[in-house]
Amino acid sequence: MVLDPRSKLDHHGKVVALVGGVGGAKLAYGLAKNLPPEQLTIIGNVGDDFQLYGLHISPDLDTVMYTLAELANPATGWGLAGDTRQMLDMLHTYGETPWFGLGDRDLATHLLRTQWLREGQSLTAIVGRLLAGLGVKHRLLPVTDDPLATVVDTAEHGTLAFQDYFVRHQWQPTVTRVRYQGAEDAQMTDQVAAALDAAATIIMCPSNPVLSIEPILVVPGIREKITNRRGVCIAVSPFVGQQALKGPAAKLMGELNLDISVQGLFTYYDGLLDGLVIDETDREQVAGLAEQEKFTLMTQTIMNTPDDKVRLARECLDWVGRFQP
Amino acid sequence: MVLDPRSKLDHHGKVVALVGGVGGAKLAYGLAKNLPPEQLTIIGNVGDDFQLYGLHISPDLDTVMYTLAELANPATGWGLAGDTRQMLDMLHTYGETPWFGLGDRDLATHLLRTQWLREGQSLTAIVGRLLAGLGVKHRLLPVTDDPLATVVDTAEHGTLAFQDYFVRHQWQPTVTRVRYQGAEDAQMTDQVAAALDAAATIIMCPSNPVLSIEPILVVPGIREKITNRRGVCIAVSPFVGQQALKGPAAKLMGELNLDISVQGLFTYYDGLLDGLVIDETDREQVAGLAEQEKFTLMTQTIMNTPDDKVRLARECLDWVGRFQP
Repeated sequence: MVLDPRSKLDHHGKVVALVGGVGGAKLAYGLAKNLPPEQLTIIGNVGDDFQLYGLHISPDLDTVMYTLAELANPATGWGLAGDTRQMLDMLHTYGETPWFGLGDRDLATHLLRTQWLREGQSLTAIVGRLLAGLGVKHRLLPVTDDPLATVVDTAEHGTLAFQDYFVRHQWQPTVTRVRYQGAEDAQMTDQVAAALDAAATIIMCPSNPVLSIEPILVVPGIREKITNRRGVCIAVSPFVGQQALKGPAAKLMGELNLDISVQGLFTYYDGLLDGLVIDETDREQVAGLAEQEKFTLMTQTIMNTPDDKVRLARECLDWVGRFQP
Repeated sequence: MVLDPRSKLDHHGKVVALVGGVGGAKLAYGLAKNLPPEQLTIIGNVGDDFQLYGLHISPDLDTVMYTLAELANPATGWGLAGDTRQMLDMLHTYGETPWFGLGDRDLATHLLRTQWLREGQSLTAIVGRLLAGLGVKHRLLPVTDDPLATVVDTAEHGTLAFQDYFVRHQWQPTVTRVRYQGAEDAQMTDQVAAALDAAATIIMCPSNPVLSIEPILVVPGIREKITNRRGVCIAVSPFVGQQALKGPAAKLMGELNLDISVQGLFTYYDGLLDGLVIDETDREQVAGLAEQEKFTLMTQTIMNTPDDKVRLARECLDWVGRFQP
């Protein structure tokens, strides 16, 4: 594969985006603003799904869904803009100490999902219904409808369920190992398989590689489909100046002795990437790259405004159009 | 039993109140203000419990609980004062048409109850925990921890679940029959049995006789324990001027050819009542009473303010103190 500086295709064929939570959702939003629904499939992480007060909660899927619907809380990136916390306040009155932010409007999502799951509907179908209710026409697919739980072995507290580590302990424990329980028995859905088979472009959004993208890649067959792709696969680095913009990615990967440099990310996504989009801040790292890892796009990767998201997505798509097999 | 006009005991022994929803809850509140926790047991109706969005909802128990905690919405008598409806609003966004009023703060009650039931706790224990959380020291006991569902056969819509009739159809269908599904297999709890055995006074609060009190009386053994009481049993009529103050009691009893006059209520509670508390408005009805039904207390039974509730409860207790075996 070569990079043709002159080529700038308007048509990228079908695009698949792998996405986790807040950071990835921003790029997914930008992609959805650049591509019609039939050209984009967003595959979401379910490794951080969990049960709380009998509700099935899918934090990453909801973050992507609310972001696509332009309903996400701009201050946090997750939850619903303008949401209230009356239910949580009443739980406190009952002497409970809820540690997860359940907004009142957000509860409607959890109640419907939980009810529909109990009725036997698939998570895929449920996300589709919820998206339709919010007027979102782009597809968001859970990577699997089967149980898959990211768990974190820590030095201080032993094994923690993901949200226990991430929210209750605010990702402060030292991580010794990350595991994906149930992954080996999880099946990618037919829709996910078809989207990957049809993809001319696969984009790993700027989400935590270990906690957001990896729980997608570990589902049997996903990595093989990406490896055997007929098109291009790129990732957008979630790091700027070797720091995570948000969340535990840099801290956790350091604890796991994973290198978060540009070269380190190529190594982490071993053999999967044709190119990596990095922030201009990390320009000096490119000089030291090995020849086979030289395809990098340097740009402004921090997405604060809707325009930032649309612009970065556009740049990624333009760049991908220059890859020539 | 005779009525001694001079006797006015301060100590009534243990009191049991049978209670349904809003009207009954008001008197229960008044009783709780007149009696210490160890002297009062409130037995609540579970026939209108139902499931909605996966939540176990106990409308009558919650109304009593919130009323005792002085948290009930004064405008409606049910729900929590100052509660919001963000979750319901979001359900509408999803295209749902929720027909039951679930306040955001109220949801905390339903979520905890549902979770604790799934964990195997009894409804009795759960109501106790919720009451403790709200700082209520008086006991509220569901008549049974077993399934018991009031259903309504209607001329227009066939058989309706209770809340379907009461809330969704706003009690407008014509009722041909009321049934209490599961009643024959429901067991009164040990706590309910002990409270009735120990009761010197049993008070049927001004709740719907057919829809609120009857689902308590149909639990096997309850009627027998009241019949074989060692003390006094009175009821407070929920009717004023042959109209229900609230809800379907008069309309429904008319459809079932039940007489809601003073004499009619004695007949309805066949053999269970020593006396009936009625509104002064219904004074003229007493003249026609048969000798064995003549024990009536005429007073102001409409309870608008907290003072009304406390005063009516006080009058009931004073009156009961005049019954001499």
